[in-house]
Amino acid sequence: MKRTITHLADGREMIYFDRRDDADRSAVDTRVLPPRPPASELRYDPLLDEWVAVAGHRQSRTFLPPAAECPLCPSAPGRQTEIPSTEYDVAVFENRFPSFSFHVGDYDQPGGLSEVRPGLGRCEVVCFTSEHGSSFAALSPEQVDLVLTAWADRTAELAELPGVEQVFCFENRGAEIGITLSHPHGQIYAYPYVTPRTRQMLASAERYRERTGGNLFADVLAAERKAEIRVIASNDHWTAFVPAAARWPFEVHVYLNRQVPDLCALDAEERAAFGPLYTDVLRRLDGLFGVAMPYVAAWHQAPVRSGRDLAYLHLELFSIRRAPEKLKYLAGSESAMGAFVNDVLPEEAARLLRSQDDR
Amino acid sequence: MKRTITHLADGREMIYFDRRDDADRSAVDTRVLPPRPPASELRYDPLLDEWVAVAGHRQSRTFLPPAAECPLCPSAPGRQTEIPSTEYDVAVFENRFPSFSFHVGDYDQPGGLSEVRPGLGRCEVVCFTSEHGSSFAALSPEQVDLVLTAWADRTAELAELPGVEQVFCFENRGAEIGITLSHPHGQIYAYPYVTPRTRQMLASAERYRERTGGNLFADVLAAERKAEIRVIASNDHWTAFVPAAARWPFEVHVYLNRQVPDLCALDAEERAAFGPLYTDVLRRLDGLFGVAMPYVAAWHQAPVRSGRDLAYLHLELFSIRRAPEKLKYLAGSESAMGAFVNDVLPEEAARLLRSQDDR
Repeated sequence: MKRTITHLADGREMIYFDRRDDADRSAVDTRVLPPRPPASELRYDPLLDEWVAVAGHRQSRTFLPPAAECPLCPSAPGRQTEIPSTEYDVAVFENRFPSFSFHVGDYDQPGGLSEVRPGLGRCEVVCFTSEHGSSFAALSPEQVDLVLTAWADRTAELAELPGVEQVFCFENRGAEIGITLSHPHGQIYAYPYVTPRTRQMLASAERYRERTGGNLFADVLAAERKAEIRVIASNDHWTAFVPAAARWPFEVHVYLNRQVPDLCALDAEERAAFGPLYTDVLRRLDGLFGVAMPYVAAWHQAPVRSGRDLAYLHLELFSIRRAPEKLKYLAGSESAMGAFVNDVLPEEAARLLRSQDDR
Repeated sequence: MKRTITHLADGREMIYFDRRDDADRSAVDTRVLPPRPPASELRYDPLLDEWVAVAGHRQSRTFLPPAAECPLCPSAPGRQTEIPSTEYDVAVFENRFPSFSFHVGDYDQPGGLSEVRPGLGRCEVVCFTSEHGSSFAALSPEQVDLVLTAWADRTAELAELPGVEQVFCFENRGAEIGITLSHPHGQIYAYPYVTPRTRQMLASAERYRERTGGNLFADVLAAERKAEIRVIASNDHWTAFVPAAARWPFEVHVYLNRQVPDLCALDAEERAAFGPLYTDVLRRLDGLFGVAMPYVAAWHQAPVRSGRDLAYLHLELFSIRRAPEKLKYLAGSESAMGAFVNDVLPEEAARLLRSQDDR
């Protein structure tokens, strides 16, 4: 594996991850780019005790361009994209429209009971493959392994940046879920705070440890493996199951069979075993209704400085599609009260996903 | 005001609220209806320490019927709807596809570390007007007053049902946000637990009181009134402002100027003053892009048995539309991590909403 760091025309970092050690990454970005936008502001919400990022510049970000103008495809003669090379394996670069960055702009105190601070941090784009029409589900095991290597590399490096408290690797897929570029890609957010849901999960895990002495995530995994009914797929290193209290019509959690804090701790065997299992789960998801399913795939990693003994690396995958023509929307109960109503029984979702074997 | 309780053909309660004391509500529902579905299940999520409702029967609920088949219009000769009368002012009835009810069905323990209990409670539909093509923004002050009376009545009555811990009155509006019926209507959920966001807000308010001795909500309101920059509209009894840490592109909170726990505590003057202010805010929202805006309007009321001295009646209104052709989607950062990124500066949203005066 070869890793090459270079820079784009406006100074953003670009990192290539190559299977071949002789890959040539000398191509230069000769575009004339506008200056990078300032960092967002973080506003404190005293009612929910959470930080909210406000990033006005993102209103103008690139929105579903035609394939011939895709900024994530390799460059070609006469057309320079975000990736200077004319081919690549996996490419990672700083987002041009970041929610968090180290380019601090001007801002005022907003008044009220809120306070504001700069949205320091970093947002990166991860191109999973140079093939525009592909998908994560279609990646080869070797390619998934390389993506995992890139995610782990970025997790370790971003955790070293000043003030970064949590690194979040994720993929949003599908126009129905709001993606603005269709090329297979994910994103990485390096947050300057521990995110609300992670904080909530670690608080649960802390209380659970005080009460039982055990690790909450490990015990959930063990109980699901024992119950079997919601397990979709498993191998020596990973288990994929529908959680018993799923919030979404089709939701699958993929756990490593041992507790580690983050992707950096995976060994070569675990990395190699992930791709076949996960792409199988993704293909089952796409098989449900015979259409490419919109989804969010979210790696839950330990924060940089807290809860590292409690956290448990796992991926949470969910789709908002509940039927061929119907989506699950977050309306009043979910958005305003955080009270989820799921229209699909988790055991039925598991049965449907498992039965894709027979196709 | 006249209040009449009657029953639909399958036994569900129907309550009419009429301005005229001589309204005739003797019409009988003669439809042959299928038996009512069983209550949902509540599944406990140990990772987030929250309850999730699973309601499989809701998959088959009525989905955007043509106007001629609207079940919320008054009945007409040869066509019986959910409302037996041929006209009405405000009509409230038990939801045919409820997320919570007292009709307990069979269910198994799901295994895993989850536990399950029946989703006891009640879900009601509130028809704001008999005019199919109208909207809340177009209601007369007298009609809004009657809706407020109905909400307060239902809040008081539902709070008396066994096990109900919180009553939530809300409106989802617009196909973009997932509404399945376009007739102007809202819903009421009587939950068998205190919802996650309310729990979180009351925990913040409790910590705030310990630290400062003050009421968090009252102090937020006072600070916003002082800062002025985000206030959209106000009168002697109510203040509408964009919160300093808004999560949504266009978000407005409407506070009563004194602390009360719920809608039942409003006096006649406060009820009368709400309609003109709130419908003005709704019309400004619709004026932003010249299109009917999708929104969620959520009344935050005190739980039935806890936090009643901390809670503060207010309404939170937000739209997911961030531009004429663009919606705000909750993707990875928001859905998986609870970390919101808002693309519109709250002060800019307030300025745009205020400037609708000049149209």
